[in-house]
Amino acid sequence: MAEVIEKQSGAAFKLKEGQKLKVIDPQGQQVSDMVLFSEDDKREKISSGKTFDFEESILLTKGNFLWSNRSNKMMKILEDTNGRNDFLLAPCSPETFKIMYKKQEYHPSCFENLYTNLKKYGIELDQIPTAFNIFMNVQFTADGKLSVEPPLSKAGDYVLFEAQMNLIVGLTACSAEDSNGGSFKPIHYEIIDD
Amino acid sequence: MAEVIEKQSGAAFKLKEGQKLKVIDPQGQQVSDMVLFSEDDKREKISSGKTFDFEESILLTKGNFLWSNRSNKMMKILEDTNGRNDFLLAPCSPETFKIMYKKQEYHPSCFENLYTNLKKYGIELDQIPTAFNIFMNVQFTADGKLSVEPPLSKAGDYVLFEAQMNLIVGLTACSAEDSNGGSFKPIHYEIIDD
Repeated sequence: MAEVIEKQSGAAFKLKEGQKLKVIDPQGQQVSDMVLFSEDDKREKISSGKTFDFEESILLTKGNFLWSNRSNKMMKILEDTNGRNDFLLAPCSPETFKIMYKKQEYHPSCFENLYTNLKKYGIELDQIPTAFNIFMNVQFTADGKLSVEPPLSKAGDYVLFEAQMNLIVGLTACSAEDSNGGSFKPIHYEIIDD
Repeated sequence: MAEVIEKQSGAAFKLKEGQKLKVIDPQGQQVSDMVLFSEDDKREKISSGKTFDFEESILLTKGNFLWSNRSNKMMKILEDTNGRNDFLLAPCSPETFKIMYKKQEYHPSCFENLYTNLKKYGIELDQIPTAFNIFMNVQFTADGKLSVEPPLSKAGDYVLFEAQMNLIVGLTACSAEDSNGGSFKPIHYEIIDD
C-alpha cells in the first residue's frame, strides 16, 4: 500500500539496510527531491560530488549507486521506468522563488518541506545537501548551460531503490512550477521489506 | 607577493568582503580545489547545487558568482584567463585513491589538505562540501558521462575572485594524478586589498 505525499509537501522516514524504496509518480510529470542521511551518524549524507566521482556520470539510473560524503554507498537504483533524474540542482527554497521567479510572497518549497519533516530526527536546515531529484528533467548543453524542462515521467513511472545502510530519508512532492510543467501533484512511495 | 601552496598541500585563510583573491597556476596544468565558508556562521558554505541553480550553467567563469547553501553570493569571478573550471566532482579523498585508483597505501588528498588546514577555524571534515575546482578540466558528454582530462591551463593562468561576504577560504594544490596530467605542482595565490 503506497504512502501519499500530497502536492507541495514532504515526508521523512527510516529505511533499513536491504529495504527497498519505490518512489512513484502517480499522475506523471511530477518531481520528487530525495535526501539521505546515515541513521548512525547524521553527519554522513548523500553527496552529488562523490556520486559523480564514483559513477562517472551526471545522469544516474538503473545500476547506479548514490554515495555519501564519506564515500560509502547509500542506495542502489534497482529499477527506473522513466530514466531521467537530476543531481545537479539544489532543492527549490524560498530564495529560489524570490531570486529566480521574482515572487516576493510566501511559496512552499522542497527545502522547507525537507527540513520541517527531517526536524524530528535532529536534522537542521543547514544540513540539507543537494538532493537527488527523481524524475526531474534538467537538460544541459555542451557548453554547460542548464535548463529545467517538464519531466518525461508518465503516470505510474517509478524508481526502485535499495538501501545500502540504515538511512533517514527525506522525500518531497516538488513545489516548483518549472520542475513539473506548471502543475502540482502528489508523489507516492512504498517501503518494501523483502 | 604571491603565497605558495606546495605540491599536494593546502592552505586556509580569511578573506574580507571586497577583498580579491587571485589563484595562479604557476607552471600550468595544475588544479586547485577551493571551499568557502561564511566567517560569521560556518554552517553557511559554498554550494554547487545553488550555484548551478542561480547561474544556470555547469561551467562557471568570468561574470559568474559562487553561491552558498543559504542562497547568498560568496564570490564573484572577475577574471579567468584559462576559462575551464569544474564544480561537479568532490575533492579527492583517501577513498578516491582506494576505490577509483585501486591504491591501498596512504596517498595525500585535497580532502585531507582542506580539513587539516580548516581545523584552526573550527571546521570539521564532514563539513567539507563539493569544492570549486579551479583549472580542473572535467568533460561531459550529452548522455552525462564524465571524464577527467589534463587541465588546459598554461603557466601563469589565473582566476581572480572578489569576496561578496567575509569568508574563510580553503585552497589546495591538487593531489590527484588524473586531475593534473600525472604531475604534482604548486599553486600560488595573492590576496589583493584595493
